[in-house]
Amino acid sequence: MRGAVIYAPGDIRVEDRPDPTILAPTDAIIRTTATCVCGSDLWPYRGIENVRGPAPMGHEYVGVVERVGSEVRNVAPGDFVVGSFFASDNTCEICRAGYQSRCVNAEPMGAIGTQAQLARIPLADGTLVATPGMPDADLIPGLLTASDVLGTGWFGAVAAEAGPGKTVAVVGDGAVGLLAVLAARQLGAERIVAMSRHADRQALAHEFGATDIVAERGDDGVARIKELTDGLGAHSVVEAVGTQESMMQAVRSTRPGGHVGYVGVSHGVALPGEELFFAEVHLFGGPAPVRRFLPELVDLIWNRKIDPGRVFDLELPLEDAAEGYRRMDERRAVKVLLRP
Amino acid sequence: MRGAVIYAPGDIRVEDRPDPTILAPTDAIIRTTATCVCGSDLWPYRGIENVRGPAPMGHEYVGVVERVGSEVRNVAPGDFVVGSFFASDNTCEICRAGYQSRCVNAEPMGAIGTQAQLARIPLADGTLVATPGMPDADLIPGLLTASDVLGTGWFGAVAAEAGPGKTVAVVGDGAVGLLAVLAARQLGAERIVAMSRHADRQALAHEFGATDIVAERGDDGVARIKELTDGLGAHSVVEAVGTQESMMQAVRSTRPGGHVGYVGVSHGVALPGEELFFAEVHLFGGPAPVRRFLPELVDLIWNRKIDPGRVFDLELPLEDAAEGYRRMDERRAVKVLLRP
Repeated sequence: MRGAVIYAPGDIRVEDRPDPTILAPTDAIIRTTATCVCGSDLWPYRGIENVRGPAPMGHEYVGVVERVGSEVRNVAPGDFVVGSFFASDNTCEICRAGYQSRCVNAEPMGAIGTQAQLARIPLADGTLVATPGMPDADLIPGLLTASDVLGTGWFGAVAAEAGPGKTVAVVGDGAVGLLAVLAARQLGAERIVAMSRHADRQALAHEFGATDIVAERGDDGVARIKELTDGLGAHSVVEAVGTQESMMQAVRSTRPGGHVGYVGVSHGVALPGEELFFAEVHLFGGPAPVRRFLPELVDLIWNRKIDPGRVFDLELPLEDAAEGYRRMDERRAVKVLLRP
Repeated sequence: MRGAVIYAPGDIRVEDRPDPTILAPTDAIIRTTATCVCGSDLWPYRGIENVRGPAPMGHEYVGVVERVGSEVRNVAPGDFVVGSFFASDNTCEICRAGYQSRCVNAEPMGAIGTQAQLARIPLADGTLVATPGMPDADLIPGLLTASDVLGTGWFGAVAAEAGPGKTVAVVGDGAVGLLAVLAARQLGAERIVAMSRHADRQALAHEFGATDIVAERGDDGVARIKELTDGLGAHSVVEAVGTQESMMQAVRSTRPGGHVGYVGVSHGVALPGEELFFAEVHLFGGPAPVRRFLPELVDLIWNRKIDPGRVFDLELPLEDAAEGYRRMDERRAVKVLLRP
């Protein structure tokens, strides 16, 4: 099969890789209908995360089940499926509490690499959710977002306790931040402030339900959020970047007793304990337990209640994955869908 | 009046201070029946916090109202009252959400200094809770703990979401940690692990409801908590120290999706973002909004359902405040009650 591989920062190649096989009786093999490039793929691409190449890339996927191991019960060949970027058994105590990304048997799909024509899905019964039937072509991008960016933005909004009567601010205008706006709207937030300096992303934020846009960053951004909230700060802030500046912007934009949901993969962040103590804000985040939300998200997309696929502003053949990375790295694309 | 004053690290004196007066119509003046030395008083005493002496000391108090300002409605001269270590209006949006220690008009009682015969209580209607009548002498120590250490331990347990079916670990065996054990018991926790190396404190932890004791600290302490919880970590961990080691011990002792409630005043702590991200634990803490819990705590004490006053293992006249500080600094006393 063909699949994307990183050799070094900036060096993505699509090449022949061995077809995956069933390794455990709980595995499934899927033929990927669509996959994509994630903001978190840019960390190794930019060399901010160590690259031990050649290594397969990609952890987002939708596709059709080709084969299943002997113990797989919930999905069958021919099913169209969506899965999380972490494989999980969905039965352990941590999964049952709703934290499937930290399943005691979790396997990161990024190590398998779903920017490829085929992919092995470990713990298929726990990981995959089948759609009610074969989706119309226009639903594919939306369903693909459920695999990570929508589920992650949703988790950020849930972690920030977005809901009725709340003012929610979103730090970060990448796909995850934009979909956190969509999630906050679905969760019933009263006011949703998207923090973005880019006209195209501001427009999409409005479309997804943002009521206000704040273009300022850092201390100025915090001051604007305070102005919008009687000096108190937002009830809920979603952090969808992962840097020191964005984390502190999130913490400082939140009122005492409010909630920060952080889903940007943390890089080089050190949170000052004393400031955090006196800020008195709830902090929660990490790799999103997308599997918890998948049934609900698939349902919303299937029934055309939400259209998160709008975050894809570029579609390329898998063979052109390198170009997709380049466009996202240079912020010339919000999110790139790849067709194997 | 007589009152304790800090001049420099290690230098506490009891001396004549001016009697307080009504400064605002919302003030009350109380005659303190009892006050005490807090673990947080030791930070300046040890010079870890800057001392700009001479400065009055103390922020815990129970007493009898002597005079009230013209706008005070809820308490009257002769009432026996308990109040929080932060004065709060209890009417602003932050107070109404339950975060009175971050009231938009909050005033720290430590700046006023309650280790004294009299104290001015700002925002008396919002800050003070009157008991149903004059308490029996044996209730005074318990009521005094409600002013801070009990309320703080309680908040830690609430922030850690201690409750039925939960395993709760408590890092720190000072008065706050011990009372977090009591709080976890009252909140219905199934298993309560006190982390303590001192036999007397272990005994008190057992008396307050601890089911297990872990004497190990740091990585060894974390390993013991994991052993006790099928390798997962505790559902709820209360941090009641405030150092880097204790914070990391708390974070690492918590299972994914679990809750850390941190109430030790943070000193020199920097939380590593990447570890926190992948730990996927809820973090919440800060100065306890004691006022939220006061009516319930006063009721529990008044009706002899709990006996938090057991944390006092030494009682001294206010004149001997310096000795009280010394004993706590040298860990020869858990908590010292002072009689003005």
